[in-house]
Amino acid sequence: MERVYNFGAGPAVLPEEVLAEAQRELLDFKGSGMSIMEHSHRGKEYDAVHTEAVDNLRKLLDVSPDYSILFIQGGASMQFAMVPMNLLGAGASADYVNSGTWADKAVKEANLFGKVNVIANTGKEIPTRMPGNEELKFTPGAAYVHITSNETIAGAQWKVFPRTVAPLVADMSSDILSRPFEASQFGLIYAGAQKNLGPAGMAVVVIRKDLAERVSTAVPTMLKYKTHIEENSLYNTPPTFAIYILMLVTRWIIKMGRENLYRQNVEKAARIYRAIDASSFYKGTAVREFRSDMNLTFRLPSEALEEQFIKEASRQGMKGLKGHRMVGGIRASIYNAFPLAGVDALVAFMKDFESKNG
Amino acid sequence: MERVYNFGAGPAVLPEEVLAEAQRELLDFKGSGMSIMEHSHRGKEYDAVHTEAVDNLRKLLDVSPDYSILFIQGGASMQFAMVPMNLLGAGASADYVNSGTWADKAVKEANLFGKVNVIANTGKEIPTRMPGNEELKFTPGAAYVHITSNETIAGAQWKVFPRTVAPLVADMSSDILSRPFEASQFGLIYAGAQKNLGPAGMAVVVIRKDLAERVSTAVPTMLKYKTHIEENSLYNTPPTFAIYILMLVTRWIIKMGRENLYRQNVEKAARIYRAIDASSFYKGTAVREFRSDMNLTFRLPSEALEEQFIKEASRQGMKGLKGHRMVGGIRASIYNAFPLAGVDALVAFMKDFESKNG
Repeated sequence: MERVYNFGAGPAVLPEEVLAEAQRELLDFKGSGMSIMEHSHRGKEYDAVHTEAVDNLRKLLDVSPDYSILFIQGGASMQFAMVPMNLLGAGASADYVNSGTWADKAVKEANLFGKVNVIANTGKEIPTRMPGNEELKFTPGAAYVHITSNETIAGAQWKVFPRTVAPLVADMSSDILSRPFEASQFGLIYAGAQKNLGPAGMAVVVIRKDLAERVSTAVPTMLKYKTHIEENSLYNTPPTFAIYILMLVTRWIIKMGRENLYRQNVEKAARIYRAIDASSFYKGTAVREFRSDMNLTFRLPSEALEEQFIKEASRQGMKGLKGHRMVGGIRASIYNAFPLAGVDALVAFMKDFESKNG
Repeated sequence: MERVYNFGAGPAVLPEEVLAEAQRELLDFKGSGMSIMEHSHRGKEYDAVHTEAVDNLRKLLDVSPDYSILFIQGGASMQFAMVPMNLLGAGASADYVNSGTWADKAVKEANLFGKVNVIANTGKEIPTRMPGNEELKFTPGAAYVHITSNETIAGAQWKVFPRTVAPLVADMSSDILSRPFEASQFGLIYAGAQKNLGPAGMAVVVIRKDLAERVSTAVPTMLKYKTHIEENSLYNTPPTFAIYILMLVTRWIIKMGRENLYRQNVEKAARIYRAIDASSFYKGTAVREFRSDMNLTFRLPSEALEEQFIKEASRQGMKGLKGHRMVGGIRASIYNAFPLAGVDALVAFMKDFESKNG
């Protein structure tokens, strides 16, 4: 068995040792004679998994007891609705920053539930970027401010989060746990699990508990943060296997050291950006100061060369380098679990490809 | 490694050969060098899994092209909200049969969205039962009629589904694919996956497509059946691993033959009910004609004996026999993947336990 280098944007690469552990105990979790998938979500074996998953996230994200950590099905797309349904009271408005495809989806969904002010819009700019903090014109009295910390498609990333009076809400689907940040600066953070945390099928939500009290009684029980806070994400049967993998991933991060991981992420991105900047053959698509360390986007001189690049890389075991169909080009997604060796393989391939085709 | 007999009500036992196959290819799906968990939901490898999962269900459930088969996150609890949000137009009412804890939850959630007529209520009766069809007083013009085909906690099951003028909606979480039924009799069927179909983390929904057109624009995009019909359950990233396991489970059913499985389910239940009826020590808790073939509930002469029964069974490798905390007693859940040998082991244990304690 030879594992490939998976540059896919999500569902994405998982740590090999996490998969190996899951494989070993897939039919017999800790000598219980059952798979973790077969265990009751109310039993002691699963309870230990669930508790460790929450505790690990709390530790890694430095979250105070004022916040709850939730596992909610439906991914970030469900959060696009849940955020306004819970936080945007009748007659209130919310500020949204539109920085690309994902922010735009959040805006569109919020429009179903109340008044949305798009306070900055860099979504269609090329090269791609986030707005500077000086561009943000907050609305006095806004219920919250919503940003997208990393645009997976555009390859742009907030480097300094804005300071806001209203609670700051962030979609961190593609960069949660990839770098240090101050959780207390946020009212609510959500992230689809399938990039940096585990398999597809849920979002992790970090919410300041008092914000969950705003919700109206008319909101479906499953879409109230309050429901999941009160029941520790066990109101109904949670996606137990996905949470188990997330637990193993967070354990893996703790073992390697969060700071070491963050440093490695910076180094991984820097090696590829250096290769881009050292060449006139490759061109980054994001404004330099907003370049994402998770989704690295660049172009070649022609679409034909891009196609050839993707094909040859794939033959050499580097998969998933094709840019999103909406924007084209090349995208190298190098989430937490993506190995440094894979970055070096890509850089070597880029040099080789340029020397043959440049 | 010794596998136990898992009588748990859900998440529940999965076919051992399904788990073994998932284990073999957990780090390398079909020679792709990635886990199926790591594959893009838009790639050809996952697409084949998704397509086979839908096709297998369509075949096993004999569903006509008028129906869509959907995978929706959030389990049956989310469906409690989605059904009225999609099917219950403004000013309309729906008929609900309250037959126990799960039906009651569906009723409570529907009350958030419109007028609910509880047209029969056997939910608190002991012995537990479903209403006879002659007891049902349908409301003329109701938007739909909702039933719960099997009450997992009470151990009661509809044996003959009612004929209705309004579209019939059924929660089949605990008995889908366990016995033959006429899908065309239903407007919508939903089932949490974690009992007869796969791991926790989604519901399978079978919906007559025209019903999805009723939905108002104000419903969240992720909660519109229309969204998932139009995008073949790929509007957002689906729970790919859960769907993969479901695909393997349905393939396993096709291989053994659906009719063989149904016959085996009847036989499994009959063996335990015969043991109950042959004794005055054990007492079934459901009215005989409504006894569930999936969740078999019975009592012993005292709670102390029940506790001892559960403990001794557990020591002999029979797990999960404790009745739901709301009702107590014993519950043997014997879903599709539960082996006949486990039933025989329980029956032998029951006889032995009675002879020592009767």
